[in-house]
Amino acid sequence: MLTAEENALLTQTGPGAPMGNVFRSYWTPTLLSRELPEPDCAPVRVKLMGEDFLAFRDSNGRVGVVEPRCPHRGANLFFGRNEECGLRCVYHGWKFDVEGNCIDMPSAKPHQDFKHKVRAKAYRAAEKAGIVWVYMGAAKKPPALPGFEILDVPEDEINLTFIMRECNYLQALEGEIDTSHFGFLHAGHVDPDNVDEDAPLRQTITDRAPEYHVSDAPWGTQYAGYRASGADQTYWRFANFLFPFWTQAPNGEFGSHMHARAWVPLDDTHTMFVFIWWKKAVAANSQPQPTFKDGTPIGGTGRLDELLPNSTDWLGRFRMPANAGNDWHIDREAQRNNTNYTGIEGVHLQDQAITESMGGIVDHDLEHLAPSDLMITRTRRRMLIALRALRDTGELPPGAEDPSIYRGARSGYMLTDGLDHKAWQNVYDTEFAAAAHP
Amino acid sequence: MLTAEENALLTQTGPGAPMGNVFRSYWTPTLLSRELPEPDCAPVRVKLMGEDFLAFRDSNGRVGVVEPRCPHRGANLFFGRNEECGLRCVYHGWKFDVEGNCIDMPSAKPHQDFKHKVRAKAYRAAEKAGIVWVYMGAAKKPPALPGFEILDVPEDEINLTFIMRECNYLQALEGEIDTSHFGFLHAGHVDPDNVDEDAPLRQTITDRAPEYHVSDAPWGTQYAGYRASGADQTYWRFANFLFPFWTQAPNGEFGSHMHARAWVPLDDTHTMFVFIWWKKAVAANSQPQPTFKDGTPIGGTGRLDELLPNSTDWLGRFRMPANAGNDWHIDREAQRNNTNYTGIEGVHLQDQAITESMGGIVDHDLEHLAPSDLMITRTRRRMLIALRALRDTGELPPGAEDPSIYRGARSGYMLTDGLDHKAWQNVYDTEFAAAAHP
Amino acid sequence: MLTAEENALLTQTGPGAPMGNVFRSYWTPTLLSRELPEPDCAPVRVKLMGEDFLAFRDSNGRVGVVEPRCPHRGANLFFGRNEECGLRCVYHGWKFDVEGNCIDMPSAKPHQDFKHKVRAKAYRAAEKAGIVWVYMGAAKKPPALPGFEILDVPEDEINLTFIMRECNYLQALEGEIDTSHFGFLHAGHVDPDNVDEDAPLRQTITDRAPEYHVSDAPWGTQYAGYRASGADQTYWRFANFLFPFWTQAPNGEFGSHMHARAWVPLDDTHTMFVFIWWKKAVAANSQPQPTFKDGTPIGGTGRLDELLPNSTDWLGRFRMPANAGNDWHIDREAQRNNTNYTGIEGVHLQDQAITESMGGIVDHDLEHLAPSDLMITRTRRRMLIALRALRDTGELPPGAEDPSIYRGARSGYMLTDGLDHKAWQNVYDTEFAAAAHP
Repeated sequence: MLTAEENALLTQTGPGAPMGNVFRSYWTPTLLSRELPEPDCAPVRVKLMGEDFLAFRDSNGRVGVVEPRCPHRGANLFFGRNEECGLRCVYHGWKFDVEGNCIDMPSAKPHQDFKHKVRAKAYRAAEKAGIVWVYMGAAKKPPALPGFEILDVPEDEINLTFIMRECNYLQALEGEIDTSHFGFLHAGHVDPDNVDEDAPLRQTITDRAPEYHVSDAPWGTQYAGYRASGADQTYWRFANFLFPFWTQAPNGEFGSHMHARAWVPLDDTHTMFVFIWWKKAVAANSQPQPTFKDGTPIGGTGRLDELLPNSTDWLGRFRMPANAGNDWHIDREAQRNNTNYTGIEGVHLQDQAITESMGGIVDHDLEHLAPSDLMITRTRRRMLIALRALRDTGELPPGAEDPSIYRGARSGYMLTDGLDHKAWQNVYDTEFAAAAHP
Repeated sequence: MLTAEENALLTQTGPGAPMGNVFRSYWTPTLLSRELPEPDCAPVRVKLMGEDFLAFRDSNGRVGVVEPRCPHRGANLFFGRNEECGLRCVYHGWKFDVEGNCIDMPSAKPHQDFKHKVRAKAYRAAEKAGIVWVYMGAAKKPPALPGFEILDVPEDEINLTFIMRECNYLQALEGEIDTSHFGFLHAGHVDPDNVDEDAPLRQTITDRAPEYHVSDAPWGTQYAGYRASGADQTYWRFANFLFPFWTQAPNGEFGSHMHARAWVPLDDTHTMFVFIWWKKAVAANSQPQPTFKDGTPIGGTGRLDELLPNSTDWLGRFRMPANAGNDWHIDREAQRNNTNYTGIEGVHLQDQAITESMGGIVDHDLEHLAPSDLMITRTRRRMLIALRALRDTGELPPGAEDPSIYRGARSGYMLTDGLDHKAWQNVYDTEFAAAAHP
Repeated sequence: MLTAEENALLTQTGPGAPMGNVFRSYWTPTLLSRELPEPDCAPVRVKLMGEDFLAFRDSNGRVGVVEPRCPHRGANLFFGRNEECGLRCVYHGWKFDVEGNCIDMPSAKPHQDFKHKVRAKAYRAAEKAGIVWVYMGAAKKPPALPGFEILDVPEDEINLTFIMRECNYLQALEGEIDTSHFGFLHAGHVDPDNVDEDAPLRQTITDRAPEYHVSDAPWGTQYAGYRASGADQTYWRFANFLFPFWTQAPNGEFGSHMHARAWVPLDDTHTMFVFIWWKKAVAANSQPQPTFKDGTPIGGTGRLDELLPNSTDWLGRFRMPANAGNDWHIDREAQRNNTNYTGIEGVHLQDQAITESMGGIVDHDLEHLAPSDLMITRTRRRMLIALRALRDTGELPPGAEDPSIYRGARSGYMLTDGLDHKAWQNVYDTEFAAAAHP
C-alpha cells in the first residue's frame, strides 16, 4: 500500500513536483499536427502538466510552444497575430518567434529598443507521426523521440486517437496494466459456461482470475497474465508500462500488434489519452465484447462516442459527451438485463467511466490491493525509485537518455502449447522475434 | 448573543464536529422508502452531515447505506450492480452486502481470496412510516427510533414531504420555533383592522407582537406564544424543539394535530426538510394566508411549487424550482400592491426564501435578538449544553437513549377562556390529555 | 518594476487594504440614477470594493445604500419592502431608513422596543449628473463631489456609459494612460504609408512610437505624447490620471473635449467603467478606426456591443456579451485579412478584451516595461506614495479634501506649430485657457 506521501509523489506533476520533473525529462505527445493545419493559423491553447501554453505554426511551418502571457504587460498572446514567422501581441505589437525570442518591438524608437533582452518562455517542439511533441525539460540538448516501433510505420498506416479523461493520469494508466478487470468491466455479462470455443478472448471470460508474472523491464515494467486454455494450451496476455506515462495493452494479437498509448497529464485531474496504433494490426475480433460499431470492428478501443467539438478552452480538446455529469449515460436497464455488464457502452467508455468515477485523484493510500494488482504495485515502486533517484541524485529515469529501449517493447495476446508458465520471458522473446516489424 | 466559537459549534455537523456527534447519536430520516422502489433497484446518492453514501435495496428488500468508494481500488459503487443480495463493483466484481461486508472477490483465485478482511464503511438502516432511517453513530446497539406519536399512525394516514433547503440546518430550524414572524412574513399584507372575526389565525394578525413563555422540556425546549383574543379569551400557540433537529410548529389545531418536522443537514449549507404529518389533522383553514391551492386546502405548508425532478447528484433530491438564483420568483408588483407581503408565493416558499436569503451559514454572532427570539436563545443554549456534555463527558443528549420522551410532545393552537397566562403548562397538559391519540 | 508586495498594495481594494482606504476617501460613482427610477422602487444589488450593498430610493426620493443583512437575524433586505421612507425586512417587519437607522420594530411590544440601539451599516449617497455617488469613508463630514468641469454641464448635454470589465481596476485603468497602444491595438491594420493626409489621428499610425513627457500634476499625473506631424508641426496627445481611479484620455479635440472616466473596483477582479462625456465635444471623426456604427459616429468608445440586460446579481450590471468565455467574438479571418488588426470589433471592446485577457489580476511584477510605459510607472509610484502616506501618517490623498483640483484637468489632442516639445506644459496651459468651459 502507498503512504499518503507516496500518493502525492506519484500523482502530482506540476512544475517542481518530483514526478513532474520525471515527466519533463521526455518528449510529450501534445497535439495532433492537424490541430495546427497550416502556416500562420490560429494558435491553440494547451495545458500540460499544470502549465498553460499556446501552440502555433509559424510562416515556415515550424511549431512553437510559448507561454500565453506577453512579457511586456501580460496581454494574452492567444489573441496575437500569427504572421511573418512569429506571434505578435496585438496590444503594442511585440513579436515572438517559435523559440520565444522577441524579434520585434515596434512601440519603441530604435534607440530605446531592448528586444534582445526579452524572451517569452518557450518549450521545444517536434513533429513525427502526425503528432506535435513537446520537450519541457531543462537539458540544453533534448533527447531523441521515444523509439517505439509504431513511430517508424508509414504515416498513412497509423491511426491517432486523442481523448481527454477527467482524472489523474495514474488511475487512468493503471487501468491499462490491469488485465484482471477485463472479464468483469468489459465482459462480465457473458456466461462463462456458454462461450463459443472459437470466440476471441474467450479465456478472459472462462477464467476471470488469471495469474501473473510481473517483472521490471528496460523500459519500465512488464507483466504476463496467463490462464490455461483448454487442456493443453496456455493463453497469455503481455503488457507493458513504459516510462514515463506510456502503456502497451494486450488489445491485439501479439504477432501483428503494434501500438503506444500515452496518459499525458494536462493537470493533475485531467489526462490526455494519446493512442498511436497500427491500422494493419489484427484486432480482437471478439464477440461478445462490444468492439464493433455498426458491424465494423473498430480496433481495441471499443465503441467510441462521437467526441464533442473542440473548443478554445484550456481543457476543451477531445472531450467525450458521456461524462461524470451525466453518469456516462449509464443504462440501468441494460445493466439489469445483463445485456451489458455495466450499462455503459463500449470498452473505452467503460474504462473512462470507471477511472473517472474514482474522483479527480483517487486516494491510493486507502486501497486494498489484491494479488491481481501485482503489476500496479510493481509499477508504482519502479516510478517511486525513478522519481527519488532524479530528485536526490539527478539520475535521469529509464529511456530519457536512450530512447531505443522502447523498441523491444510489445504487447498482445497469444496461445502457446503446454501449460508450463515459468519460462514466460522466453515466450515473450520467441514471439517478439517471430513478429512482424516495420 | 453567540460568540463566533459557539456559532461554529452549533452550525458544523461533519464527522468529528461536536454537533455532528450529537446528531450521530440518533436515527436520521434520510430517504423516502419509495426512492428505493424495489429489490435490486438502482442505488441512490445520499449526502448526510457532510458524508457521501449510496443507499440501495438488496434482493431481500433490506436497505443498505454504504460508502461510495470500492475498498479495492476506489471505483464508485454507484455504478455497481445491485444483484443477489449485494452491490457489486463493476470494475473487478467485488461485492458488498448491506452491512458493508465483502461477500465476493471473484478476481482472486480461491487461495488468494481475502474478502473476510475487507469492509466497505456502512451505516445501519431501518424503515418505518415510509421512511428510510439511518444511524451513523458508534453504538454497537443503536437506539430505538424516536417515539413520535405520528409514527404510530397507520401508514396510509401519513403524508410525507421532503424538500431541500439551501442553507445551514440551524437557520432553517429556527424559522420554525419563531411564531413572531407569522404575522409579517406570511400575513403582513392583511389589514389587522379588517379581519373577519371568524377567520382562523386572525389573532396572529390583530396582534403581531405576541408574548412568550419558554422553558426546557424533556425532549428539548417548548414555547407558548399567547395573545388576548377578544375581551376574555387567550389564543395560544405551542411549539417544540426536539433533539437533535426536530420541530413541531403550531400549524394546526392542537387537539387533532400531529406531526414531526426534521431539519437534516446534508452538509453545512444544505438541509433536507422532512415533514411527517397526519392527513386527518384539522388544518389551518385560514384565509387570508395562502394555504389554499386551487381552492383546496393543502395543510400547513402553504402553496408548494412543483419540485424539480430528482437527479442522481449528491444534492439533486427534492429541490424547489424557486431558489436564490432566481430570487425565489419574487413578484415585486404583488409586493408593492400588498396582495402578498413578500411577493413570494406560499408559506413554505416564504420560509425557504427568507432563511436561504441569509446565505449558506448565517453569522449568528452578528444578530440582534429580541424578546420574541427567546425560544431561539433558549434552544441554542440547550443545544450547546448537550453538545458540550457529549464532547466533554460522553453523556448522550436527550432522547438518544430513551426515545419515548418524544411521545409527550405536541404542537398546535387553541383558545382558552380567561386571560390568565401564568399556568401555561397546565393548559398544555390539559389539552394534551384531551387530544386524540393514535 | 514592481515587487510582489507593491503589486498587492496597488491591486487590492477591499476593506482594510491600504489602497481600499485611499479609494474610500472619495465619492465613488456607483449607479445611474435611473437604475432607481422612482420612489419606493425595488432595491438594486451593488458590489463596491469587495463589499455588498443594497441601493434603494425611499418614498421621498432619497437614495440609501445599506448592507444587505438585516441586523436582527440576518435575513436579506433585498427582499424587503421599500415603503414609507424605509426598507422593511419582510421577516419580522423591522424597518431601516436611508441612513441605516432602525425606525420600526413592530414584532416587539412597545415596552420591549430597542430600535434606537439598532443600525444597519449604511454609506452616504448623493446624486449629481445622473449618477448616484457613494462615500464609503470614515469622515464625519464627507468631502465635496469631485470638481470635474463635465459635472457642471447641463445634464441633458451629458452622456453616461457604464460597462463592467472583468479584471482588476489597475490594468483597466493603465490601458487608458498608454497612448502607445493606439496605433497597434486599434489601428495596427492601417498601412502607415497610405494614410490620407486629412484623416484624423493619422499621426498615431504614421508614427507608432511616440515620445513622452510625463509629470506629476495636482490631481495625480499627466503625460503628453508627441510626434512630428509633417515637417513643421507637432501632434500632441494629453492625458491624465486623477486620484483615485479617474482617467482622462485623448479621445477628442482638446479645445472642445470634456469628460471623466472612472475605473471603479466592484471587487478586485471586476471593475465598473464609468464614462461621463460631453455630447457637444468634437469626437475623433477618424476613419479608419472603427468609431462609426452604421455610418454614425458614436464618440470615442468605438463600436459597442449591445450590453446584456442587467440581472439582479451582485455582478450582473452592464455586462458585454463578448467576454473571455467566447474569446470576445474574435474573428480570425478579419485578423488574418488585416481588415481588423485584432479581429475584435470596436475600440472599446479591443481595450476590454486585451485587459481582461491578462487574467483577473495581472502579475505586474513580471512585466518588462518600456520607455513608452513611463506614464504607467510614474502613476504607480504616485499611487504608492499616496497609499503609504495615508497608511502611515493619515495624510489624505490628493483631491480628497480639495475637489477643486480636478477643475484644471483636461485631455485631448491638438496640433501646434513648430517641432519644439520642451515647453509642453506651456502648450497645455495655453490650450486650456483657450478652450471652451462650461
